[in-house]
Amino acid sequence: MEKNIKEIPKIATEYTQRGADILEIRIDAIKNPSKAKIKELAGNIQSPFIATNRSSEEGGLFKGSEKERIELLAAAAEEAEYVDIELRTKKEELKKIIELPVKKIISYHNFHETPTLERLSRIVKEEKRIGHIAKVAVMPNTIKDTLTILELSSKEDDLIAISMGELGKYTRIITPLFGSPITYATGGKPSAPGQLEIEKTRLILKELKPKEKIV
Amino acid sequence: MEKNIKEIPKIATEYTQRGADILEIRIDAIKNPSKAKIKELAGNIQSPFIATNRSSEEGGLFKGSEKERIELLAAAAEEAEYVDIELRTKKEELKKIIELPVKKIISYHNFHETPTLERLSRIVKEEKRIGHIAKVAVMPNTIKDTLTILELSSKEDDLIAISMGELGKYTRIITPLFGSPITYATGGKPSAPGQLEIEKTRLILKELKPKEKIV
Repeated sequence: MEKNIKEIPKIATEYTQRGADILEIRIDAIKNPSKAKIKELAGNIQSPFIATNRSSEEGGLFKGSEKERIELLAAAAEEAEYVDIELRTKKEELKKIIELPVKKIISYHNFHETPTLERLSRIVKEEKRIGHIAKVAVMPNTIKDTLTILELSSKEDDLIAISMGELGKYTRIITPLFGSPITYATGGKPSAPGQLEIEKTRLILKELKPKEKIV
Repeated sequence: MEKNIKEIPKIATEYTQRGADILEIRIDAIKNPSKAKIKELAGNIQSPFIATNRSSEEGGLFKGSEKERIELLAAAAEEAEYVDIELRTKKEELKKIIELPVKKIISYHNFHETPTLERLSRIVKEEKRIGHIAKVAVMPNTIKDTLTILELSSKEDDLIAISMGELGKYTRIITPLFGSPITYATGGKPSAPGQLEIEKTRLILKELKPKEKIV
């Protein structure tokens, strides 16, 4: 999580060179953001990116009002590949993002526990109804909780499912084998518990990915 | 899989230095074995090892009779940490191994498919009734089959559960996180489909293993 807005385009290029296919720009980690500043930043980033402005309720750092949060996110959206918006965003604010001509990742975070497979399936269904990619990031309390996330991944397409923290760390490498379109790695300080570095993620994924047999 | 019996003690030491905690000596991969040769070999190995003499029905290379197979295995048992014996071994031959004063790994292999969780649980129960560690190594046909193995691992102690082949390769790194006492890696040519190298196994395991939080 980087905070100096001027540094971000350079860091973005560096992370891409280090092996990231797409970046996540965390607006909530930027000090004193304004619409103009965010628009300028978005235009200066050379790599494909996800624009995210995480509320504190979902584990983010954003301190302003919901209206401000959504305005800043929308400001970045024009240049973004995806916008990440929380399923639990209030309806009228959510609508502002849903109507934008950009692909949406609809996300759900739970830093305390792993809901049941049934509950998570319902959340994913709701997310897919309004977005292109569904995301659930939940905390395991036992190693068995991490299996719920793998099961969910095996059942759903266009889903990013993450089991967070130390116990769930391995799911960040495994869910891509189950068809997850995106996994989150870090170039510096992790933005969520359990993230691995870009290079390690790439290397381990390469090692564990089934190789197609050439007969 | 090494075949020159004279080379084996040296290779064993090398593999231990490369990071293996315990080795598997595959008697079935040795050319023209005799009880005397195997006894001598077992005495010359400096590292803790599992003695295995795999029948062709379970994916091994042994060509002789069942009586010979068991005799050779028993010859190595005195020096072994564990003896691996197939659950489907005929009762009278199985008994000869079960009665030896050595710890037993009771194993089941299926190179065609992944039986249901219920069927595998029954196999594990039978294995544990006569041995110290249960082992099931089965082939997945879909990525979902690999979850059966993780579920089984999460339910059982003293179980080595492996999903073989390219699809299941990742389970060799993940089941130790679920408490599996042993995972199989290779120093040279793999003895089963999907095995990773010793060094890679160690490195990835270290990366993905939950770190205890020191507060």
